[in-house]
Amino acid sequence: MALIEPHGGRGLVCSLLTGAELEAETIKAKTLKQIRVTSRSTSDLCMMGIGAFSPLHGFMTKKDWKGVCENFTMADGTVWPIPITVDCTKEDADAIKPDSEITLVDEETGTMMATMKVVEKYEMTEADKSWECMQVFTTDDIAGHPGVEKVHKQKAVNLAGPVKVLSELDYRERFPGIYKTPAELRQMITDKGWSTVAALQLRNPMHRSHEYLAKIAVEVCDGIVIHSLIGALKSGDIPADTRLKCIDALVENYFTKEHVLQAGYPMEMRYGGPREALLHATFRQNYGISHLIVGRDHAGVGDYYGMFDAQTIFDKIPQGEGGKYLKTKPLKIDWTFYCMKCDGMASMRTCPHTKADRVILSGTKLRKMLSEGEEIPDHFGRKEVLDILREYYAGLTEKVEIKMQKFATGEEMK
Amino acid sequence: MALIEPHGGRGLVCSLLTGAELEAETIKAKTLKQIRVTSRSTSDLCMMGIGAFSPLHGFMTKKDWKGVCENFTMADGTVWPIPITVDCTKEDADAIKPDSEITLVDEETGTMMATMKVVEKYEMTEADKSWECMQVFTTDDIAGHPGVEKVHKQKAVNLAGPVKVLSELDYRERFPGIYKTPAELRQMITDKGWSTVAALQLRNPMHRSHEYLAKIAVEVCDGIVIHSLIGALKSGDIPADTRLKCIDALVENYFTKEHVLQAGYPMEMRYGGPREALLHATFRQNYGISHLIVGRDHAGVGDYYGMFDAQTIFDKIPQGEGGKYLKTKPLKIDWTFYCMKCDGMASMRTCPHTKADRVILSGTKLRKMLSEGEEIPDHFGRKEVLDILREYYAGLTEKVEIKMQKFATGEEMK
Repeated sequence: MALIEPHGGRGLVCSLLTGAELEAETIKAKTLKQIRVTSRSTSDLCMMGIGAFSPLHGFMTKKDWKGVCENFTMADGTVWPIPITVDCTKEDADAIKPDSEITLVDEETGTMMATMKVVEKYEMTEADKSWECMQVFTTDDIAGHPGVEKVHKQKAVNLAGPVKVLSELDYRERFPGIYKTPAELRQMITDKGWSTVAALQLRNPMHRSHEYLAKIAVEVCDGIVIHSLIGALKSGDIPADTRLKCIDALVENYFTKEHVLQAGYPMEMRYGGPREALLHATFRQNYGISHLIVGRDHAGVGDYYGMFDAQTIFDKIPQGEGGKYLKTKPLKIDWTFYCMKCDGMASMRTCPHTKADRVILSGTKLRKMLSEGEEIPDHFGRKEVLDILREYYAGLTEKVEIKMQKFATGEEMK
Repeated sequence: MALIEPHGGRGLVCSLLTGAELEAETIKAKTLKQIRVTSRSTSDLCMMGIGAFSPLHGFMTKKDWKGVCENFTMADGTVWPIPITVDCTKEDADAIKPDSEITLVDEETGTMMATMKVVEKYEMTEADKSWECMQVFTTDDIAGHPGVEKVHKQKAVNLAGPVKVLSELDYRERFPGIYKTPAELRQMITDKGWSTVAALQLRNPMHRSHEYLAKIAVEVCDGIVIHSLIGALKSGDIPADTRLKCIDALVENYFTKEHVLQAGYPMEMRYGGPREALLHATFRQNYGISHLIVGRDHAGVGDYYGMFDAQTIFDKIPQGEGGKYLKTKPLKIDWTFYCMKCDGMASMRTCPHTKADRVILSGTKLRKMLSEGEEIPDHFGRKEVLDILREYYAGLTEKVEIKMQKFATGEEMK
């Protein structure tokens, strides 16, 4: 059986230039007006570059933006869950002539990310931003919600138009063997002979509750891709290299090689809960993945979303046949944990016992225990994984101690 | 979402008469020529009576029989995996006039099971029977295969035609709360609000490996029906009442009530492996079940079938849209067991460890240990279930001992 086709019905739409085209465009890019963009837009460009955001090949027009916010649908009828937009100041916008080209530059590294033909400029008032946030994030809480904060930090004008992407950044070097384009992951999946493929979206270290999600998927699908976010996270989240080390240890010791693949994708979290779960499914379709595991509070933050809103939203988006509709399905799984009475992993759906029988730790509690070197309760995580996390937290403490020492000796002040 | 529609596209086709119709037909049945039929035909009549064999409403013609054997398809194009036929002696057949009615009587209990309008009589030579067995069972081993043995024990002529079923036998009394018609189970499923429903086919006591199959289904479907065969089994199998007690104990202690239902169906095993797995899926569709769990050696006996032939056969039958095609899908799951290193239940797909790490007991070994009162290894079965089985085996031993005592004292000889 063939793999699921990319979203949009037009194959993989990759905006990344290569070879002579890239060289020529890079030379031209230097001569164009430079617009500095945030890491969110940079990561969106990476996703468009490698075809992970197919069929998108540029930033959204006002009509796209409105349709996506209102009813998950772009102007041409393609289902899409979250606006993909880029912004600039009023002054910059005024200086851009209609249909002219500009260069989008990563504000953090100064990398020229893409050239863009600006076909539309549209103002985003604070009211517009609040409306977008309410539609997409169901909250306008700037202080509490990192996705909302990013929207409100956008400058006054959105620019729309097709892009030619010039860089994948250094993901391939930083994450060798893990960073994969959709075409590459599709080839790996084809080589495995899989057709029903689940993805486990991961932005946290993989404990037994996540392993259980993955293993349910392995039981019912041809295989699983442990698909880690390697783009930017909010502060306090555990960095990708540590998370990947944990996954390596798990895959090495607790998975059968025939049914598991690892990969990473260069997107940044918006913490959009239900809408972001849809986005995670949409770009997974481009990666050749037929099922996205959607557990408890998928892509959520704080208390903004109901525990299973990210599951039910899949039934609320426009449904239909043909390329314009989302094909990757959610594999909906309940809250999972080890239960002493079950004598194994279970979920709220399968375990009839009580809280006292279950091994459940909050993220906060776990971090505290790990950083203070406390023993983690049996069955919560695999020893191999906990050892890696202990080492990571010990490193953090060391850094803090060195910093404090330097401060005490005055070295920090120089 | 609505439940899966019954097989055949004509709703539930129930041949069981009730009320005045039943009374009148019963009076008439006494006057018709009586043909004694085996427990297999009796159980097929029960299944037709309650609509579990929809759209069948009688025994198959030669054309149906041939099409089913050859390519899983009846004369009218309906997919069906195993011939459903009834037989009589040459003498009886000769005495039946074309298009006349006869009465089918259960040879074991003498119950008048059905009247039948005989529209066709066709001879079944030993070569025909062997051909059927090779097609359906992939073996013609009369001595070793109980399904083959039954075909070869059939008398010389098959009778075809529609039936009016007069009795459900005493299933409802013997299995109160468990024996359910398709209409009844559909109502129970609807009351639960389920739409994706898996069935666990059970003819053995439910140990943790079966519990795990059921729980994977609960994780990914709305709910599971633990659906026990309560028709006749081969000797040595554990009787239904003991098996049902085991399920009660499991459901009571290890399942959440919201996601599990218990029921039984009055069919007899043919031990047809892959073909029988298809039959199990076909009648499950009539019961409103969307997915049949198909594990290792489903419905197999001896070494006649590859471990997973019953999974792959689902991809080999005629596929299509519309009522004539099978809609209930297999939920294919690998060999399952408890693994010490996994620290929980696993399968060959999810566990990378070795045989030494796994708790696996053969049925023979388990029976021996239970009947000799030995301790069963940890994690193999639930205590509540093992206690019931120990009691059952102790009862068997007691019976044998009493028998032997009686024999020793000569009482048995009287």
